Amino acid sequence: MNASGTAEILTENGGKAPAKDAPQAIRLGVIGATGYAGRELITTLAHHPDVRITRLMSSGRQEKGAFPIEKTHPALKDRTREGQVRSCEPLDLDNLSRAAVDLVFLATPHETSHEIVPLLLARGLRVIDLSGAFRLKDTSAYRRWYGFEHLVAGALEEAVYGSPELNAEAIRSARLVANPGCYATSIILGLAPLLQAGWVDLASGIVCDSKSGASGAGRAPTQKLHFAEVNENCRAYGLFSHRHLPEVLQVLGLEESCFTFTPHLLPITRGMLSTIYLRLAPSPGISADAILDLYGKFYAQAPLVRVYERGTLPEVQAVAHTNYADVGFGFHASTRRLVIVSALDNLGKGAAGQAVENMNLMCGFPQETALA
Amino acid sequence: MNASGTAEILTENGGKAPAKDAPQAIRLGVIGATGYAGRELITTLAHHPDVRITRLMSSGRQEKGAFPIEKTHPALKDRTREGQVRSCEPLDLDNLSRAAVDLVFLATPHETSHEIVPLLLARGLRVIDLSGAFRLKDTSAYRRWYGFEHLVAGALEEAVYGSPELNAEAIRSARLVANPGCYATSIILGLAPLLQAGWVDLASGIVCDSKSGASGAGRAPTQKLHFAEVNENCRAYGLFSHRHLPEVLQVLGLEESCFTFTPHLLPITRGMLSTIYLRLAPSPGISADAILDLYGKFYAQAPLVRVYERGTLPEVQAVAHTNYADVGFGFHASTRRLVIVSALDNLGKGAAGQAVENMNLMCGFPQETALA
Amino acid sequence: MNASGTAEILTENGGKAPAKDAPQAIRLGVIGATGYAGRELITTLAHHPDVRITRLMSSGRQEKGAFPIEKTHPALKDRTREGQVRSCEPLDLDNLSRAAVDLVFLATPHETSHEIVPLLLARGLRVIDLSGAFRLKDTSAYRRWYGFEHLVAGALEEAVYGSPELNAEAIRSARLVANPGCYATSIILGLAPLLQAGWVDLASGIVCDSKSGASGAGRAPTQKLHFAEVNENCRAYGLFSHRHLPEVLQVLGLEESCFTFTPHLLPITRGMLSTIYLRLAPSPGISADAILDLYGKFYAQAPLVRVYERGTLPEVQAVAHTNYADVGFGFHASTRRLVIVSALDNLGKGAAGQAVENMNLMCGFPQETALA
Amino acid sequence: MNASGTAEILTENGGKAPAKDAPQAIRLGVIGATGYAGRELITTLAHHPDVRITRLMSSGRQEKGAFPIEKTHPALKDRTREGQVRSCEPLDLDNLSRAAVDLVFLATPHETSHEIVPLLLARGLRVIDLSGAFRLKDTSAYRRWYGFEHLVAGALEEAVYGSPELNAEAIRSARLVANPGCYATSIILGLAPLLQAGWVDLASGIVCDSKSGASGAGRAPTQKLHFAEVNENCRAYGLFSHRHLPEVLQVLGLEESCFTFTPHLLPITRGMLSTIYLRLAPSPGISADAILDLYGKFYAQAPLVRVYERGTLPEVQAVAHTNYADVGFGFHASTRRLVIVSALDNLGKGAAGQAVENMNLMCGFPQETALA
Repeated sequence: MNASGTAEILTENGGKAPAKDAPQAIRLGVIGATGYAGRELITTLAHHPDVRITRLMSSGRQEKGAFPIEKTHPALKDRTREGQVRSCEPLDLDNLSRAAVDLVFLATPHETSHEIVPLLLARGLRVIDLSGAFRLKDTSAYRRWYGFEHLVAGALEEAVYGSPELNAEAIRSARLVANPGCYATSIILGLAPLLQAGWVDLASGIVCDSKSGASGAGRAPTQKLHFAEVNENCRAYGLFSHRHLPEVLQVLGLEESCFTFTPHLLPITRGMLSTIYLRLAPSPGISADAILDLYGKFYAQAPLVRVYERGTLPEVQAVAHTNYADVGFGFHASTRRLVIVSALDNLGKGAAGQAVENMNLMCGFPQETALA
Repeated sequence: MNASGTAEILTENGGKAPAKDAPQAIRLGVIGATGYAGRELITTLAHHPDVRITRLMSSGRQEKGAFPIEKTHPALKDRTREGQVRSCEPLDLDNLSRAAVDLVFLATPHETSHEIVPLLLARGLRVIDLSGAFRLKDTSAYRRWYGFEHLVAGALEEAVYGSPELNAEAIRSARLVANPGCYATSIILGLAPLLQAGWVDLASGIVCDSKSGASGAGRAPTQKLHFAEVNENCRAYGLFSHRHLPEVLQVLGLEESCFTFTPHLLPITRGMLSTIYLRLAPSPGISADAILDLYGKFYAQAPLVRVYERGTLPEVQAVAHTNYADVGFGFHASTRRLVIVSALDNLGKGAAGQAVENMNLMCGFPQETALA
Repeated sequence: MNASGTAEILTENGGKAPAKDAPQAIRLGVIGATGYAGRELITTLAHHPDVRITRLMSSGRQEKGAFPIEKTHPALKDRTREGQVRSCEPLDLDNLSRAAVDLVFLATPHETSHEIVPLLLARGLRVIDLSGAFRLKDTSAYRRWYGFEHLVAGALEEAVYGSPELNAEAIRSARLVANPGCYATSIILGLAPLLQAGWVDLASGIVCDSKSGASGAGRAPTQKLHFAEVNENCRAYGLFSHRHLPEVLQVLGLEESCFTFTPHLLPITRGMLSTIYLRLAPSPGISADAILDLYGKFYAQAPLVRVYERGTLPEVQAVAHTNYADVGFGFHASTRRLVIVSALDNLGKGAAGQAVENMNLMCGFPQETALA
Repeated sequence: MNASGTAEILTENGGKAPAKDAPQAIRLGVIGATGYAGRELITTLAHHPDVRITRLMSSGRQEKGAFPIEKTHPALKDRTREGQVRSCEPLDLDNLSRAAVDLVFLATPHETSHEIVPLLLARGLRVIDLSGAFRLKDTSAYRRWYGFEHLVAGALEEAVYGSPELNAEAIRSARLVANPGCYATSIILGLAPLLQAGWVDLASGIVCDSKSGASGAGRAPTQKLHFAEVNENCRAYGLFSHRHLPEVLQVLGLEESCFTFTPHLLPITRGMLSTIYLRLAPSPGISADAILDLYGKFYAQAPLVRVYERGTLPEVQAVAHTNYADVGFGFHASTRRLVIVSALDNLGKGAAGQAVENMNLMCGFPQETALA
């Protein structure tokens, strides 16, 4: 912030200049800008022709006062665009009003989102919350899964689960979008076509074994995420108890007893693979071709979901550093066993990319703008 | 080989010396010495007080003539022990006789093992074969799973599946041990106690999702194992069709229709994790404590299997560069869903370590010599 | 290619459609499309508003006939744009004429480039060659450094070394641009300001220790690039003999005796760091501030070079997956020792990014289009 | 600790048993057992036939009371040997007396070692300190390089720098050994033969560019060592100011102005490579063969230093998970430029391995016991 109280803004290649008048551009705030999802939001939005970031804020940082965002994200050096703020300030609700911002991305801890979303909505701002604070419909579920008491039942009710493939219409007019969890996105996109079609033998149960890169666990240093503890390692965690489980059950309408989900930590930075095991219900018409056709039709209008032909399978490398979710499968016809493989970048389609996709829907832009 | 036809041998720290007389030491041949399993065999055997490697051979290398083993394995430089050969020669059966060798390790391709095992047995040598050529009992299975016609039904019948936890007695007196596959070992050790006890609800099916480091795929360079294709990646492969599947079914007595196995490639060099999903049959006494007790008793005499207490789970790092297999689990009592996590080093307990363990049994040494 | 002989083209999200009329778009050929640099060119060009890829060709692939590019680069699935070819065909000069193509990128082996560049120029095409075949001015140097006899002295003479920071004017009007090597780019950008200013004590010698990710070595599988050989490793290679050395000497006007360069292989996919050691000539005015000022002015007009403030240093992560080169330094004033750190993505500014930057100059587009 | 106040000890395979009488075994304490060097000490000492760990202590851990060491190091589960303590207690000097311990390894922070070494010596214990607290001879250097005031000049004077290749005799009788830094070891072993022979042109300066795995930075979680910050990255740090610099200068007798050292962080867990650049003084007899001969003779009696033949170079993978230091070089005869490459495992020869080697000398065991 400079002396006159307006954020310092930059010309294309880094020189200082007065903010250009860009009346049609949507003005954005990114809260939680110092984390990995925050960085990804800034990087992705830099390629969007119709928006402008006017507020960068961090939550929970020790630093007092504003600092250039490249200080925490050196990759962003000189990359902020004309008319875009590059100074990151501590979270300050007074500086988040309709005068400066139209829509706010929250890449903040669950508890922070829970606290400030109602205040932002009250100011007339639209909000896309990347935390889990508004994904579940049942306030009491927050006690069990998130360990805090949810006090904003109204916002929970209003919140739209931000899965563009399932809820595009509701997202377009939403004030509050609860951006899905990364694991949840990969699972939901892998299972939705089959479940909607009623093809799954639910009595046999569904097993989902997911593997995620470490950036999904955030940027705060911990023993478990220390380099030498993750490198050359792979481990399961959160058996029967991961927070993305209840949102999967809620969105897909599944019982907890028939869905087993185990997340694993991979020694990679970005990307996630879910391997999903189930048995199809007996039916004369079911074949690999029919399954492929079902997925193809379900995602025909989804610009960021790619369905794989038979004989090829999604893998992390095909989606890392992209905003796509890839889905493929192998089918053992005689026993009706189906293995679905679903891949995405946990920071892309699993977080910031899907958030921008939701923003595109909310603002009437083509859904894949800045993402494909 | 020097002019006199005897292998060049070394003193402790690399200087040349006449071979010391060590009449009680078991004399070993390692065939396939230039691969990763070969290197691991040499490294492990270097710490064994009662054996001496007298033949190192490669199969399929272009090079003509002998070469120092450190040429392909620089880590072995100066590490061969007194009285131990360090020169690796091309596969030469004439040089593998009782005059020089008591027992031979084969870390060779399936087809090579299939061809030479009968010849080695005929010379009175004992053989531990790390390939899959003698793991299955049914010759016709080789057509389907390995793509070649098996012509040595007698040796198949005689071969003992080298799982020390299941077959210790038979291994002790075996002439031919078929050393288990790495995936198979991790799965069998994870499931054997439960299946033997009859606790599994087989009708619900068993799912095994395994993740392996890249050294398990061998040392031959291929596109799929090129650094930049494996690094920062994770991918499933071999759906319903991996070669370790039939040996798991055979050893555990399972039907193919009730066991789904998907291997994945991890961006690590060594180590493997199998996450196994099943439902226990209803029974009043079954609890997490009872399961732990079952595993503890099953492996009470197994020096290289470690059972994890409740609340902790095996991970790759705890077993990498060791010869242990670790087993742990999470149990969802109300739905009787059980998730077993089994970890090992694919070059250790999954290959060379288990081979040496089998050798220890065959030779009457303590089972864990040079391994714990 | 379809029956009518025109390349199959795609609408934005993958549906087939007749090619849209886009008369102003520059039509591009990418030869060597199946390698890593080829993939990066396609990915980068997909974000360029003023160009269209009309030919994708591979050189040296076994496959006969055309195949969808996503077959070798799954990440490109559905990402080719409207009016853009997605079918990759074997190298076929007859299909590379002014009727279909304005400018050709060659991401081909040195020998292939050496052979086809004269033919492409003769057809009136402009060429950006990513190989080393036209970087050196002296034909005889090719015998020593590249092991083949250079037969096209005229093209060597005409070729412009594609360093936009040094040769922008010549690049704008060039028919043939020799795109710099990745190591060479990181070294040249690190040293050019100082050498041009005459500040270096050349008698003390310059040492350059560079570290590169494995994608710089290409996509062909070899033992040295096998995953388990690169992972958890770091090794020096090419002492005194790397092919990028002569182009550095030529461009910077240095004697071989005063410049020592050692490349190292890092266990990462993308990115490169050069640490450059030298002593400044004695001069009263030289200080860290003066050095920073020198670099700042030298690169004031370079949109893709970022100069670091004192106290911060470039690192691989800040440039990986970008087209920037970052330069910073540490200065020991009392002994005039200077350590320069230069970082770039070997596939970005070190290959495809710089090639597109050169194309932008050649075509009159803003230099950083699709790159910043 | 059990009720009777004696440490709980284990039989070979984990069962509890009364401590076996092993009167000749040296009794060891490992302080700082919860870090990476501590773990490596325990793992290495487990293969040593003549020692027994009787005290495991942590310094600085929050936990109160003792805990099984496998809680922080799962890889150590069931691996402690008969007669060996497996319970780790908080640092407690009262529990470190001649009654229980003969020799103590300190893998503690510099300040902790500085504080407790005099107390341990006063109790008649011999000490091998892996910190930097007793490596420098000049107390005032501690202010500059370590940021604390050194108060134990007597112990500094008495301390023997634990480089077995340089100081074997002094180490044998030392009460206090200052175990060298990892970077320092790799540099000293690379340079000592040449400097001792007086072959180096010191006026040209020596440049040392070192690259280290992340375990060298310890186990405490920090932002800089967070997995996603180290992975797919490489960065220089500590320009002109790393703490291992003064010990290199002191041991090799070099002036600071002629030795430039830059450490780099590699995205690997274990291992280090130093690339050292210098010019040899003019002399008629100097050749690559002469250099090789010099190194060969210098290290003829060093069991853990391996000198590489011409045409091959050390690399990290050949030394990772070993206790060797490897040295090789490339020589440009006409310009007398020499590039030395030195590799070791920062936890092996760079820390715990060298500490055990020093212990072997101090106790009269063969120098390479449990290490080769």
